[in-house]
Amino acid sequence: MTRLSPGDTIGILGGGQLARMLALAAAPLGLRCHIYAPEGDNPAFQVAAAHTVAAYEDAAALARFAGAVQAITYEFENVPAAAAAQLAALAPLRPGATALAVTQDRLTEKRFIHAEGLATAPFVPVESLADLRAGLDRLGVPAILKTRRFGYDGKGQVLIGSAAEAEAAFAAIGAAPAILEGMVRFSRELSVLIARGLDGETACFAICENEHRHHILHRTTAPARIQPALVTDAERLAARLATALDYVGVLAVELFLAHADHGEAELVVNELAPRVHNSGHWTIEACHSSQFEQHIRAVAGWPLGNPAMRCASASMINLIGDEVSQWPALLAEPGAALHLYGKAETRPGRKMGHVTRLQNGH
Amino acid sequence: MTRLSPGDTIGILGGGQLARMLALAAAPLGLRCHIYAPEGDNPAFQVAAAHTVAAYEDAAALARFAGAVQAITYEFENVPAAAAAQLAALAPLRPGATALAVTQDRLTEKRFIHAEGLATAPFVPVESLADLRAGLDRLGVPAILKTRRFGYDGKGQVLIGSAAEAEAAFAAIGAAPAILEGMVRFSRELSVLIARGLDGETACFAICENEHRHHILHRTTAPARIQPALVTDAERLAARLATALDYVGVLAVELFLAHADHGEAELVVNELAPRVHNSGHWTIEACHSSQFEQHIRAVAGWPLGNPAMRCASASMINLIGDEVSQWPALLAEPGAALHLYGKAETRPGRKMGHVTRLQNGH
Repeated sequence: MTRLSPGDTIGILGGGQLARMLALAAAPLGLRCHIYAPEGDNPAFQVAAAHTVAAYEDAAALARFAGAVQAITYEFENVPAAAAAQLAALAPLRPGATALAVTQDRLTEKRFIHAEGLATAPFVPVESLADLRAGLDRLGVPAILKTRRFGYDGKGQVLIGSAAEAEAAFAAIGAAPAILEGMVRFSRELSVLIARGLDGETACFAICENEHRHHILHRTTAPARIQPALVTDAERLAARLATALDYVGVLAVELFLAHADHGEAELVVNELAPRVHNSGHWTIEACHSSQFEQHIRAVAGWPLGNPAMRCASASMINLIGDEVSQWPALLAEPGAALHLYGKAETRPGRKMGHVTRLQNGH
Repeated sequence: MTRLSPGDTIGILGGGQLARMLALAAAPLGLRCHIYAPEGDNPAFQVAAAHTVAAYEDAAALARFAGAVQAITYEFENVPAAAAAQLAALAPLRPGATALAVTQDRLTEKRFIHAEGLATAPFVPVESLADLRAGLDRLGVPAILKTRRFGYDGKGQVLIGSAAEAEAAFAAIGAAPAILEGMVRFSRELSVLIARGLDGETACFAICENEHRHHILHRTTAPARIQPALVTDAERLAARLATALDYVGVLAVELFLAHADHGEAELVVNELAPRVHNSGHWTIEACHSSQFEQHIRAVAGWPLGNPAMRCASASMINLIGDEVSQWPALLAEPGAALHLYGKAETRPGRKMGHVTRLQNGH
């Protein structure tokens, strides 16, 4: 139950914008960050006290890194299991190995959610084309075929519109171990960002509402326009999942607000991310403690901060690819809080920054 | 009239907490920081993309530094004139050489303020013990003898209670060129933080009220409890000074709210700091754009942000020396925003951090 002290160092696996914003939140708390990332454009290096450039398979570099920090966290869930196991033996890894193991595999994750008595999309495991055909038979079309591992932002996914597309779809995902998911009819995509401390205390941010474009988050608004009873349900569900994972840090729970045939609203868990999440970026300006501060507090073994909103509502819009060229207008817009990620190269589909706007705040 | 672009680097002279908070404000705007500071405990290095450890007299290191950045600013006003001149010839130095020259010398500063038609404490230049004796004769006692250069937080100052103390006082400041100031009877100490952009646009933060202990700022509250007419006066006065200096960046104007014999309130300028200022730290949580963001925007040649408050009032308390050991209680206090500066060693009188509390905000 290590608790950090000011002056200690948190190690972060991954050098992208999430690590960058974690490091920016750690500094005011007197904590240093050491970023570990493979060769590449790692904008988190620009704001961290130290960094290591090495592969996640480099056991010697991982050991040196673990020896230089007092706790370790990560900005992405696809940390190789061997690296996670090695690091966890050398320093507190938060969130822990269970959270990683469960969320790295879509099938394991769905089964875990079911075991907690919560709803997911209907699904069948797919190991072969025969499995896929049988699954399409059972779930009907349209359905989505997803690789069990390494999917994000719509990558490793194929939408199947008819049974005749089965073979092409299975080939498209490289015949990898997969999961076939039935479609959920939903009216809104929501997410719950929940922080859980080392002592088991939990604190939710306002439920937020997400709009995707081309499988990439486009806009988040908070609080979500849903019934108070659903807010309570969503918070309970998130706390249940975080507690079952013995989670330490910020956990993102993506939900569908689904409507059963008789019209009743139901929360269906879409997926979990064991980390700070794009749909929580609005918390930087809108909340007393942001998702990044909450994560750092939890990883440090410190009490959680106050996630309450400081304004009536907030909206966050991602700047994807060339959209970042809007920066001069956004800088000049009163009330727009611009965040640029310091990435060297603008590429289509790449998250280059975001902008947050607050409504009815002071 | 260089305007920076995201990805560009701002060079900052000085590696303390002000440089650190500037770097933390530059990052979300997509700007890198390169810190230049002599050997020592430089907590700004922990959050900057690059740093140079060298003396301010090292012309070769200064030249390399200037070549690596697109604009240069500083966290302290005592930048040696030779360094400032060298740097200004190589890259935009903001605020510029005039602001440095005026504010580095208490006598020049007072004369400048007078030339703008504004009130200061009565003063006389002191080059010799004879000057000092004549000055005490003219201004009466108590009076304060201050070195013209290199004073801060009460250093380089002696309070003179009787004419008999003249010789000891002059010796105490090392017989350096000095200024003797008469006492101002005041009811409050105020400060105005004003930002001025490259295009001459100005924007004031709410006037704040300061309480010192042992010559070190203890507490700032904002907005100051003063008449609206005085707020307007203070803002005009600050804009006048910033414009006269052709200033770019955040300028701190320390004021006394003085009372003339007939009881009328009058604003007397105490001193200027050509940089972000301890009395503006509350703006991080309380304002849409903080003093650090405003300074970075101005230095980058970008439009100023919105300095409006997001809450009814705010208070900031410095954590000096051992007071920083309160960190666990402050971390656990709902609504307290803790800032620790990442300094390696706690020493009496050293600014180790601060805490900001907001009132009546959302």
